[in-house]
Amino acid sequence: MELKNNKYFSHIKEGLISKSTGFIGSTEDYSSASLVILGVPLDCTVSFRPGTRFGPQEIRLQSEGLETYSPYLDRDLNDYAYCDAGNIILPQGQLKECFRRIQVIINNLLEGGKFPFFLGGEHLITLPAVEVVARLYPDLAVLQFDAHADLRDVYLGDKFSHATVMRRITEIIGGKNLFQFGIRSGTKEEFIFAQKETNFFPFEVKEPLKKVNSFLRGRPVYITLDIDVCDPAYAPGVGTPEPGGCTPQELIQALHLMGAQQVVGMDLVEINPLSDPTARTAALGAKLVREAILSFGRPCL
Amino acid sequence: MELKNNKYFSHIKEGLISKSTGFIGSTEDYSSASLVILGVPLDCTVSFRPGTRFGPQEIRLQSEGLETYSPYLDRDLNDYAYCDAGNIILPQGQLKECFRRIQVIINNLLEGGKFPFFLGGEHLITLPAVEVVARLYPDLAVLQFDAHADLRDVYLGDKFSHATVMRRITEIIGGKNLFQFGIRSGTKEEFIFAQKETNFFPFEVKEPLKKVNSFLRGRPVYITLDIDVCDPAYAPGVGTPEPGGCTPQELIQALHLMGAQQVVGMDLVEINPLSDPTARTAALGAKLVREAILSFGRPCL
Amino acid sequence: MELKNNKYFSHIKEGLISKSTGFIGSTEDYSSASLVILGVPLDCTVSFRPGTRFGPQEIRLQSEGLETYSPYLDRDLNDYAYCDAGNIILPQGQLKECFRRIQVIINNLLEGGKFPFFLGGEHLITLPAVEVVARLYPDLAVLQFDAHADLRDVYLGDKFSHATVMRRITEIIGGKNLFQFGIRSGTKEEFIFAQKETNFFPFEVKEPLKKVNSFLRGRPVYITLDIDVCDPAYAPGVGTPEPGGCTPQELIQALHLMGAQQVVGMDLVEINPLSDPTARTAALGAKLVREAILSFGRPCL
Amino acid sequence: MELKNNKYFSHIKEGLISKSTGFIGSTEDYSSASLVILGVPLDCTVSFRPGTRFGPQEIRLQSEGLETYSPYLDRDLNDYAYCDAGNIILPQGQLKECFRRIQVIINNLLEGGKFPFFLGGEHLITLPAVEVVARLYPDLAVLQFDAHADLRDVYLGDKFSHATVMRRITEIIGGKNLFQFGIRSGTKEEFIFAQKETNFFPFEVKEPLKKVNSFLRGRPVYITLDIDVCDPAYAPGVGTPEPGGCTPQELIQALHLMGAQQVVGMDLVEINPLSDPTARTAALGAKLVREAILSFGRPCL
Amino acid sequence: MELKNNKYFSHIKEGLISKSTGFIGSTEDYSSASLVILGVPLDCTVSFRPGTRFGPQEIRLQSEGLETYSPYLDRDLNDYAYCDAGNIILPQGQLKECFRRIQVIINNLLEGGKFPFFLGGEHLITLPAVEVVARLYPDLAVLQFDAHADLRDVYLGDKFSHATVMRRITEIIGGKNLFQFGIRSGTKEEFIFAQKETNFFPFEVKEPLKKVNSFLRGRPVYITLDIDVCDPAYAPGVGTPEPGGCTPQELIQALHLMGAQQVVGMDLVEINPLSDPTARTAALGAKLVREAILSFGRPCL
Amino acid sequence: MELKNNKYFSHIKEGLISKSTGFIGSTEDYSSASLVILGVPLDCTVSFRPGTRFGPQEIRLQSEGLETYSPYLDRDLNDYAYCDAGNIILPQGQLKECFRRIQVIINNLLEGGKFPFFLGGEHLITLPAVEVVARLYPDLAVLQFDAHADLRDVYLGDKFSHATVMRRITEIIGGKNLFQFGIRSGTKEEFIFAQKETNFFPFEVKEPLKKVNSFLRGRPVYITLDIDVCDPAYAPGVGTPEPGGCTPQELIQALHLMGAQQVVGMDLVEINPLSDPTARTAALGAKLVREAILSFGRPCL
Repeated sequence: MELKNNKYFSHIKEGLISKSTGFIGSTEDYSSASLVILGVPLDCTVSFRPGTRFGPQEIRLQSEGLETYSPYLDRDLNDYAYCDAGNIILPQGQLKECFRRIQVIINNLLEGGKFPFFLGGEHLITLPAVEVVARLYPDLAVLQFDAHADLRDVYLGDKFSHATVMRRITEIIGGKNLFQFGIRSGTKEEFIFAQKETNFFPFEVKEPLKKVNSFLRGRPVYITLDIDVCDPAYAPGVGTPEPGGCTPQELIQALHLMGAQQVVGMDLVEINPLSDPTARTAALGAKLVREAILSFGRPCL
Repeated sequence: MELKNNKYFSHIKEGLISKSTGFIGSTEDYSSASLVILGVPLDCTVSFRPGTRFGPQEIRLQSEGLETYSPYLDRDLNDYAYCDAGNIILPQGQLKECFRRIQVIINNLLEGGKFPFFLGGEHLITLPAVEVVARLYPDLAVLQFDAHADLRDVYLGDKFSHATVMRRITEIIGGKNLFQFGIRSGTKEEFIFAQKETNFFPFEVKEPLKKVNSFLRGRPVYITLDIDVCDPAYAPGVGTPEPGGCTPQELIQALHLMGAQQVVGMDLVEINPLSDPTARTAALGAKLVREAILSFGRPCL
Repeated sequence: MELKNNKYFSHIKEGLISKSTGFIGSTEDYSSASLVILGVPLDCTVSFRPGTRFGPQEIRLQSEGLETYSPYLDRDLNDYAYCDAGNIILPQGQLKECFRRIQVIINNLLEGGKFPFFLGGEHLITLPAVEVVARLYPDLAVLQFDAHADLRDVYLGDKFSHATVMRRITEIIGGKNLFQFGIRSGTKEEFIFAQKETNFFPFEVKEPLKKVNSFLRGRPVYITLDIDVCDPAYAPGVGTPEPGGCTPQELIQALHLMGAQQVVGMDLVEINPLSDPTARTAALGAKLVREAILSFGRPCL
Repeated sequence: MELKNNKYFSHIKEGLISKSTGFIGSTEDYSSASLVILGVPLDCTVSFRPGTRFGPQEIRLQSEGLETYSPYLDRDLNDYAYCDAGNIILPQGQLKECFRRIQVIINNLLEGGKFPFFLGGEHLITLPAVEVVARLYPDLAVLQFDAHADLRDVYLGDKFSHATVMRRITEIIGGKNLFQFGIRSGTKEEFIFAQKETNFFPFEVKEPLKKVNSFLRGRPVYITLDIDVCDPAYAPGVGTPEPGGCTPQELIQALHLMGAQQVVGMDLVEINPLSDPTARTAALGAKLVREAILSFGRPCL
Repeated sequence: MELKNNKYFSHIKEGLISKSTGFIGSTEDYSSASLVILGVPLDCTVSFRPGTRFGPQEIRLQSEGLETYSPYLDRDLNDYAYCDAGNIILPQGQLKECFRRIQVIINNLLEGGKFPFFLGGEHLITLPAVEVVARLYPDLAVLQFDAHADLRDVYLGDKFSHATVMRRITEIIGGKNLFQFGIRSGTKEEFIFAQKETNFFPFEVKEPLKKVNSFLRGRPVYITLDIDVCDPAYAPGVGTPEPGGCTPQELIQALHLMGAQQVVGMDLVEINPLSDPTARTAALGAKLVREAILSFGRPCL
Repeated sequence: MELKNNKYFSHIKEGLISKSTGFIGSTEDYSSASLVILGVPLDCTVSFRPGTRFGPQEIRLQSEGLETYSPYLDRDLNDYAYCDAGNIILPQGQLKECFRRIQVIINNLLEGGKFPFFLGGEHLITLPAVEVVARLYPDLAVLQFDAHADLRDVYLGDKFSHATVMRRITEIIGGKNLFQFGIRSGTKEEFIFAQKETNFFPFEVKEPLKKVNSFLRGRPVYITLDIDVCDPAYAPGVGTPEPGGCTPQELIQALHLMGAQQVVGMDLVEINPLSDPTARTAALGAKLVREAILSFGRPCL
């Protein structure tokens, strides 16, 4: 542990990680933490409104308006040890180097036995994340909550993009290990692909998740939550608002359902503070982080 | 020079250069189009927050964040031929001249056999539009989705205003040919008038529409959709936010229901980008345009 | 009556009250009014986003976009006599002096037989208000609609704060006379306190209110409505957005239910125009004021 | 049908319908144009506030508020033939591919004898632009108007960035062919490098330009104008506001001075509409484009 | 006097004037006032960004941040008797009726011996105002401070528009009685017209005004001040930002210079609060109103 | 020193100080620092637009867009040792307790031999600051750069307010030890008081400072800089915009002039990020902090 800890601090010294005001209730004590929050402000392949790079910092800021106690679960963050490790520093124009940095750091987290909790940044960060996590858990299932299928093969001539990220992931874990919830936008090709190749539950979130839940029992699960699965009324701070989404309550209940699973990693992506002057998208993000930690994080003994 | 010119246009064809800002999937080929989108940026009689003149341009911009494919209907805009004809140029202070211009152009559209789809602008544009359409279809039914009754006889001493527009229309088509859905605001006089004179279904949208649907079968129908029928949570970009409205899903379903009717024209009005820094009202507008075209537009053969 | 009236005008002359554009349909005739709207722009103990001082003025401004007629109740504000008395002038840094001024004025209102309707301002204003009202009605019940329990004993070393206000009120009226609806945030201690000491109905608004309603019959009731009981989708203009709240319709119905009670005073607090560029929070506030007056105000004879 | 079609197009000709959103006074006729405006919305290496991708579109929009006539020069854009060729489509995450696309298109422009006028996007676009232009004009002088030196060798481990762009350009054209005006921010190393290696005129714009002007006579000149050379009071829509800059008048006069030179290309970069809700930065940009065209563009015969 | 006073109050009763929170230091006592501030929120012929209808209300609001004392002139508004008469209620779509109402009210002001001070609203309001004033003062000189010449004969097929207003005025008072300062935008035709027909001082404000000042001695003068004569850095809240304008200090000094003249009326137009989230344009407007009153208003005896 | 250091860390533990992302180039090593930056987010007595509580955090954020090197002075922050000690935690409603906390901490700073540099917060923080500093330096001169005199005796019945702060300070240090620059707003009484009692240089900044400079030689000087001394064009993020102020360049030069003095403390107050969506006010603030440190801070040996 000592050794991993050294690696973490050496990342700070090498300029790979910037320290900052942490998520509510988080500790600066990396070594004792079982869960690590890490900002991954990649904001580079978006074709519409940029700004997800400010997501992690705004989620932290808005978390101050929350309480550590969840009346839904009757649990308190004060009984959990998690560390906010700051943001990875990313040279936005160099996607390969960004991926390399993300993977070096995730690898360390996993080797150190930490639960990785990523705050995006754009959805593309899920690719390097799942790539590393899937190496450790070969039978990994990925659960995607999203408005968009993100299953294009190529987007604007690009294999690596927020619009292709889940297609790339099917190539790593196999299409049938991808479970997609709440999708309500995509090309015809993406919907045909999804219906054939993935476990595809369009439009709905909670009901299909209930069905899938027992089926997943015992398998390692990675959750990727694109905030635009929510209706723009609740989450206006996104790159591309897609009307007709779910409510915050459905997402909170979905996270609670996941308490029955062996969740091994999670990301929350695409929160764009530049598109939300009211900051309630980041406030929702902070609340989802709290409920996720309390639902499937490990409390202190 | 000719040769270079070819190179330039080949860049456009190869997708290296973007040109035009029409609605997603629209063509510039007017003659082959069966449906024509036309911006009518009248923004003149509003008493509160102006800005609907920017509606058409913002709806087009936000349409770029949509896909052409509707997973709700399993249909694709690529199979439909519609033209985005740009905006009518209007001298805002001269209402009569504005009306004249609108009617000249609509008349041409109808004579050319085009389905007219108007993007407002304020609700008053429905008056010159219905006047022309009703000449062609004497038994026209008008379906209004709106938060406000718009049935005043006079408003601020004015016969022609966003607050009187539907009253004027009852004078053209007869009150019983006006079907009003979702109305939740008006003077006592307007509600009394509506209950006596029009087909009036306050507060609700989908359920009364279902009832009316079979009744309308076979009649020509014009739809006027004031975006403020939606709750301001989903459509904050309006002149006068009126809490307590319907959801985007209800409107999408309403448009799908209309697929069974002989719809002969439609307008989408009162989207005000100046009141919505998140742009999700225009994104909703763009989605409604897509679902409307796919629901009752004519696909290419 | 003449005498009280004089007191009111002397407050203006003494610089205790500032006059302003009134709420829709309000009169300037204090003496004939049975209900008095009073702005109380206290904006001082908030730890996060300030701005509730602009609440009263924005609610009045947005009320101009409303009609005086309620189609829900089929009643019209024109049949009610209520006076908009302007805003109390408050030296924000001197909490004691602020309390003193608030209580002097409320006292006059009550002595004059007026129904007091306060527009906040932060939630702390409920404390001096209830203190005065409870003197007149010793068996007063207080109904709180809120996202936050506000039951801390001390907050940032402070006994008097928006986070402690309802705890102070339990000390005045007794915990069992406090009825709390819709609460979805608080510390563990607050939830334990509430479950033991108050009539506590977390998460829900309308259903528990129905149960309580017959129980309250005949007792004097004071209503304090913190707008953040609504979901931030409907009410983004608040100090601390807390996702997962109720809808405007539920609040409107709750106010209608209260028509069966002997309501003796009400406040509507925590509307923060600085956090809502779309102004729909204040528009919702204005609508709630209208429905409240029409539900339990006294119409003219 | 043909006939109706004529009517539609005649509406455009008669000024009843507006089409296209090119820069004011621009033509769509590429072949007859001597100058071509091209949007290059690269927005990828910025470390602070993104959004320059929206620069070209906002400059075009704001140009509609201008007149084609310049009272400063007593010349009119109507006497000049320039084409607005739209925006290059760029896959933001793939810098190499972006550069390739930019250079293919610029090459075509130059081979076609067009004067290239680029609207950024971030400052890095100057690198591929100058690389192509310098191949055609080996003795090219580059004039940079900027708040920042942009002379770092490496930035965040990156050789290609908005902070290194002018250093890379010195490697192409030689440091002494770079003329820097108005610089008021940089590292100590950058200022030392500039004082030794480039023609460096910090803080001031107009006076040093006058001195340099006769010296440049006869040489091909490329102008790169980073809008942040202006004080943020005049140009708030930038990535990194740097107080203490010049006025619009100084820039206008600088462009007029350049009328005496053989200018062979120009870019205007770093206008970020997301940081300027008043849109006056883009309005300034549009005015500078007009004065530049009128100052050193070629009028029609 | 009593009679005029009655007319004023009858305007309120007839719904021609709406009352509102007044300009700092203003009285509600119409009859004793020598100067009357009147809001004229016409906002109808603008082709770009609407919103000047909110100008009068925002100027009043921002005036509260001012002091009544001017350290420039060492005079205090408390020594002046001026009434804020509220806003004229205008049916925006009916330009003729708007003009009629404006002229009825101005006529009353002049008959009552009041100095009229109009707060726009768009620039077109100067036309009905000058028309009435010039009837009383046949040798009236009009001084225009403006970025735009506003001398078009027709604009968008319209004779009456913010772009044609000063041309219409030359037809009333004669071109040589119009003095134009600070103009920096217009068509070639407008500049040619101005140079031939009006007293035209483009680009500059203070220096030409000094020259003109002695020349004007003894003549009745009407001042129309379009806030966009100021640079958008100081006055971003305008319909069309035109970089390169004057400073607030120059305008303040210009108003002080006018203290030597027989000023008989003034308007301050084109302040658009919707385009200025910082509200400093209205704050500048309020300061200019104060300096104007103190410079050429009549103090109480 | 060790001991003071302990005190500082104990403040963090006691919840008096919150740690946060520091000012550019600052160290976390309190003991080796000769200058300490401390946020004092008091935001409580303002009568108009609140929000200065967010000043310190936004100044730090914007400082990241600066370089550590000043080309004006050819000095680099890297050669200076200063610590960013975070923000004092303040219970806004309890002014006395706020003052007590501020003074406890300043006292420790001074006892530890640190140069105190305060980031406001509202101007009232200067009172407790000067009170402590003047105890250590009995012949203290205070230099105030400000748009407003802040010399009222009482404001809204309050002795302690942003509008009375400098009057209170004259009672501590004597009026003739207060030097006021750039004042352009106040009541008549304030101007009379200033002209009689203080060293008063209204309207101007740099010229009078030059005169005063030699006079001050050898005396301990405290600088209080209210950002609204700058024109709102450069510093829109203020509570009350007052047009007609100085430029950033004048302030930078003023700070450079102070390098010749024995400056013993400084505050920079009234930066209100809520009123400036462009963030350039905080960017200016950050630049002024840098120039101040480089001008009169002590470099490392």
